[in-house]
Amino acid sequence: MRLKHLRSFPNKSDKKGLAEIGLEIYSWITDLFPLCRSITGQGVRDTLAYFKKIVPSLKCFSVPSGTEVFDWTVPSEWNILDAWVKDKNGKKIIDFKDNNLHVIGYSQAFRGKVNLAELQQHLHSLPDKPNAVPYVTSYYKKQWGFCLSDKQRKKLKPETYEVLIDSEFYNGNLDYGEILIPGKSKKEIFISSYICHPSMANNELSGPGIAIALSRWIKSLKNPYYSYRIIFIPETIGSLTYLKKNIKTLKKNVSAGFNLTCIGDNRCYSFLPSRSGKTLADKVSLNALNYIDQNFKKYNWLDRGSDERQYCAPGIDLPVVSIMRSKYHEYSEYHSSLDDLSLISPKALQESFVMMQTIIESLENNYYLKAKILGEPHMSKRGLYPSLSNNSINISVKNIMNVLTYSDGVNDLIDISNKIGVPTCELIDIVNKLLEFDLVKVSREPDPF
Amino acid sequence: MRLKHLRSFPNKSDKKGLAEIGLEIYSWITDLFPLCRSITGQGVRDTLAYFKKIVPSLKCFSVPSGTEVFDWTVPSEWNILDAWVKDKNGKKIIDFKDNNLHVIGYSQAFRGKVNLAELQQHLHSLPDKPNAVPYVTSYYKKQWGFCLSDKQRKKLKPETYEVLIDSEFYNGNLDYGEILIPGKSKKEIFISSYICHPSMANNELSGPGIAIALSRWIKSLKNPYYSYRIIFIPETIGSLTYLKKNIKTLKKNVSAGFNLTCIGDNRCYSFLPSRSGKTLADKVSLNALNYIDQNFKKYNWLDRGSDERQYCAPGIDLPVVSIMRSKYHEYSEYHSSLDDLSLISPKALQESFVMMQTIIESLENNYYLKAKILGEPHMSKRGLYPSLSNNSINISVKNIMNVLTYSDGVNDLIDISNKIGVPTCELIDIVNKLLEFDLVKVSREPDPF
Amino acid sequence: MRLKHLRSFPNKSDKKGLAEIGLEIYSWITDLFPLCRSITGQGVRDTLAYFKKIVPSLKCFSVPSGTEVFDWTVPSEWNILDAWVKDKNGKKIIDFKDNNLHVIGYSQAFRGKVNLAELQQHLHSLPDKPNAVPYVTSYYKKQWGFCLSDKQRKKLKPETYEVLIDSEFYNGNLDYGEILIPGKSKKEIFISSYICHPSMANNELSGPGIAIALSRWIKSLKNPYYSYRIIFIPETIGSLTYLKKNIKTLKKNVSAGFNLTCIGDNRCYSFLPSRSGKTLADKVSLNALNYIDQNFKKYNWLDRGSDERQYCAPGIDLPVVSIMRSKYHEYSEYHSSLDDLSLISPKALQESFVMMQTIIESLENNYYLKAKILGEPHMSKRGLYPSLSNNSINISVKNIMNVLTYSDGVNDLIDISNKIGVPTCELIDIVNKLLEFDLVKVSREPDPF
Repeated sequence: MRLKHLRSFPNKSDKKGLAEIGLEIYSWITDLFPLCRSITGQGVRDTLAYFKKIVPSLKCFSVPSGTEVFDWTVPSEWNILDAWVKDKNGKKIIDFKDNNLHVIGYSQAFRGKVNLAELQQHLHSLPDKPNAVPYVTSYYKKQWGFCLSDKQRKKLKPETYEVLIDSEFYNGNLDYGEILIPGKSKKEIFISSYICHPSMANNELSGPGIAIALSRWIKSLKNPYYSYRIIFIPETIGSLTYLKKNIKTLKKNVSAGFNLTCIGDNRCYSFLPSRSGKTLADKVSLNALNYIDQNFKKYNWLDRGSDERQYCAPGIDLPVVSIMRSKYHEYSEYHSSLDDLSLISPKALQESFVMMQTIIESLENNYYLKAKILGEPHMSKRGLYPSLSNNSINISVKNIMNVLTYSDGVNDLIDISNKIGVPTCELIDIVNKLLEFDLVKVSREPDPF
Repeated sequence: MRLKHLRSFPNKSDKKGLAEIGLEIYSWITDLFPLCRSITGQGVRDTLAYFKKIVPSLKCFSVPSGTEVFDWTVPSEWNILDAWVKDKNGKKIIDFKDNNLHVIGYSQAFRGKVNLAELQQHLHSLPDKPNAVPYVTSYYKKQWGFCLSDKQRKKLKPETYEVLIDSEFYNGNLDYGEILIPGKSKKEIFISSYICHPSMANNELSGPGIAIALSRWIKSLKNPYYSYRIIFIPETIGSLTYLKKNIKTLKKNVSAGFNLTCIGDNRCYSFLPSRSGKTLADKVSLNALNYIDQNFKKYNWLDRGSDERQYCAPGIDLPVVSIMRSKYHEYSEYHSSLDDLSLISPKALQESFVMMQTIIESLENNYYLKAKILGEPHMSKRGLYPSLSNNSINISVKNIMNVLTYSDGVNDLIDISNKIGVPTCELIDIVNKLLEFDLVKVSREPDPF
Repeated sequence: MRLKHLRSFPNKSDKKGLAEIGLEIYSWITDLFPLCRSITGQGVRDTLAYFKKIVPSLKCFSVPSGTEVFDWTVPSEWNILDAWVKDKNGKKIIDFKDNNLHVIGYSQAFRGKVNLAELQQHLHSLPDKPNAVPYVTSYYKKQWGFCLSDKQRKKLKPETYEVLIDSEFYNGNLDYGEILIPGKSKKEIFISSYICHPSMANNELSGPGIAIALSRWIKSLKNPYYSYRIIFIPETIGSLTYLKKNIKTLKKNVSAGFNLTCIGDNRCYSFLPSRSGKTLADKVSLNALNYIDQNFKKYNWLDRGSDERQYCAPGIDLPVVSIMRSKYHEYSEYHSSLDDLSLISPKALQESFVMMQTIIESLENNYYLKAKILGEPHMSKRGLYPSLSNNSINISVKNIMNVLTYSDGVNDLIDISNKIGVPTCELIDIVNKLLEFDLVKVSREPDPF
């Protein structure tokens, strides 16, 4: 029995290799950026198809429009072919083909001529960010509309405009993807990210990008302890649909879950706890974040706003936290055309990927430790302690002794990491040394003296 | 099933109506101020008779002198007709009829001539408050004495004084009043105030004044959940007597209790917890005070000094807290003639009355909330959430969602108020809306998922 | 039943008497200072023999070399007769007879001529403390060596030196001493100190000096409640040996234990908790230290370094804390010739002795208190409360009432001391008064209402 370092990419264990992951994720995001995703429709399917090329075991599911999921109904599928506004000269002044944010998500079809006053009622812009095209949706109330920069809006003159929105609703499907990776145990680690936003980079492509990279990496692990469930869903209606279909299994098996969103920008990490704040997901995340970035932002449950709203809803109560960099709603580029490929970076994506690897490595190695010898072992006879009394006890000897003193069968690796101030990744070699010398035993369940 | 707003006075729901309560309580106190109350005697009976006119269901009880109550004995009844000190010219220089504080409470009778030196041994004044007549009692040791201002005392000349104290002790009764208001449940809210002090306003008439106003108001409530027990007793010997007679019922039924004293002056609220500090009375009071006056003073159990000493004594352990403005012992006018009608105000009395209404309203509405739908409900289809994604979520929508997320069958209304930072009174309409839409159920007992 | 003041030395209850204890302990330490103690050998036996003269019931135990104790083996016995280094002129420049720190503990024998380069490999000094001779040992790896001041070391010239270390290893014994003092209960208070260091005063003779004084004092107590177990052992191998032989009894009986070390210097107290931090030993020590020296230093378990490492090891888990003044490793004179008789003082030893008496007195009197009367007793009829209401309640009346209010059968004397801010020694008379008036009862086990 040995604990395992997991955090090197398969066949690319050098630092350069790791940096390549960031570049690779960034290139995926670049490819996916132009697609017009929504909570249903072709954009979702194209995105899933792209991910399936990276991890072929990704399985796609389709849930028909009209299906009832808890209090909700899967909406009609929405697809859009073209949309524009032309001025009196027939010049396209707003064109969906330039930027898919120009049309509000789930906009109904419209064709006609309108004067400026009427047009204005269907326009959305952000006066305090004059160059940004806002991202607006109206999933459950039929309406049509365009989004544009406030700068452009102010230039519109009182004239007759020709408007086209060539969109359609029909009985179709809500699509989502799922990757299941079996481990030794039926206990699962759950990772969720969403694929329902059109051309925005941090929110949303950073989350799925890192989730698919993690999936590929986890598949490469030899004999993981946990089983893994990674899903790519539309937000809210998708997580509800997924819960509706899988709630029993999830409640029975999920040990820790992570909602990945807004995790590709260069700003500091942030964390949103589960509703109870006391799950294994909270514990492992806080442990990792404390060592990786002491200044990370810790939000509380009142700040929630993504799929943890469903995962931690009363009666569902899954142990799910959100790990982010700049939290949704909290950065100025959020939900606008400013959240573009320049907001995220290969370096940030790589770091976030490693952060998640660290968390998974902690969980995979999170054994309860129990000393096999009463009293302190005689470490110097094993060369693990200086024989001369005045030799200072170096930090690594101190760490070994500190791990031993907390190996009481009740503290797990993360507890010990918290107590002695050493990251779990640095404890792996120490525990292995103690196992090698038969000084401790490890188990997945507490085993008090 | 609906939660109920309770805090408007019957038939006087306008603000002017509320102000009238303060004026009304103040007028009662003004009427009662001149009576010479003590722990027994006619003053107590007259005070109870006055209250019975306001709330006719007030029931008076008499416990004979000599009755043993735990470690104590109900003392002889004390009544006083006249008392004065005359100077050598026969001029009354101290006269009980001017101010009943002039004679020490339970003073024995005396008639005779004394020189100044002897008289001084029976005088009490406050050198650091030269204009105040102190309030002094000697319930359990026979002695006679007068209280006067230090200013007057200093003017006394060495001459012969004639002294009269026409008081008497006899086998009589200790009197107290009790109002019982039945509710749906046998569980009780207990309110205690004392009526044993002579002419002082904040300590003591503010407490009974608000208690009788609350009684009248509670009687006007339709179908209250809790039963209510409001008592008007002499301090210490009265609360012990009441406990002796009712201890079993009280221990079985009282859910929360409040000792009302010193609650009519204009200074900030203060709070003295129960001995354990963890009862429902503590929880509801702290919740209310935190929203009403964030700067309220929080005392601890070592600062106790009123009837909570008995209610929370070891083995009695009732869930009783004290709600005050300036705490006894802590304001300069305490236990002297300075604690007069100018120290209290209709406005302060009204506010304190509303504070107690708030607490009762919180208790009456303190259901456990449990969501009826798994996952977040689809609020926009009910018009409870904006349909357009860029519409900012206003505070009232946020509050609704926050109530829902904590409706796990384990949090009660007060818990949720504490967690989401919204007063319970503002939660009532929210919960009613959720009930109306069949999104939550409420119950008096926890009902976890 | 009465609680007892214990803190006056037998037949020497005056302050002068107490000061004499400090002088007496200091004189013992002065006698013992020159002996060359190590973890085995004649120095240990001579030290134990000296203590046996003070407390004749001290029982000496010998455990043969080679005995296995948990993961360790009792080493060969080491004795040393002579050791020196002579310069080319035959002058002894380092002489064991000057200071037994000059030879590293457990140095093997050596005789021969060496040049300076070779000699240097066997020398130890402290460059940052040029006048100090360091204390060095090598118990479990055979080597030879000398310790000297860095100042002297720098003066050594390149010449041939003659070296003698006349030491020997042989199958002998590890020796330790034990004093058992039976009390009414089988529950034990455990005191441990170590006797394995050569000429150093604070670390180590202060610990055993105070332990033997405490033993003599405890033996003089009439009918103590607890049984006492005071041991004098070599550090680490000694505590492990003692644990190996007595683990069952210790785990069954020890209620609180104290490791005494570095407790004779003039600096402030310090405290190192048990591993859990929640034992009776932690509770009583923190209570005493808080009243005696509010500025005491509170270390945590990661700072451990003495026999608590064994006593609180996982699976052993005895309730043992360390009470010190300057903690080992934390003062500049530690483990060098600077830790001499000038570092400690009779006054400091006396104070530390009284500190430990205070802790023992607290434990002996640590009953659970339970009121015998419901409600507050009528104190004024017993003369325990002023009869006149305006007499201020003095602090002693307040303390009596505060003890009573917490006499709920669940709080023990130390809990009450912590809650009401009064040292346990001041509570003894109060409790006795309450016992005398039959107002409380006391018991060794909780007895809730």
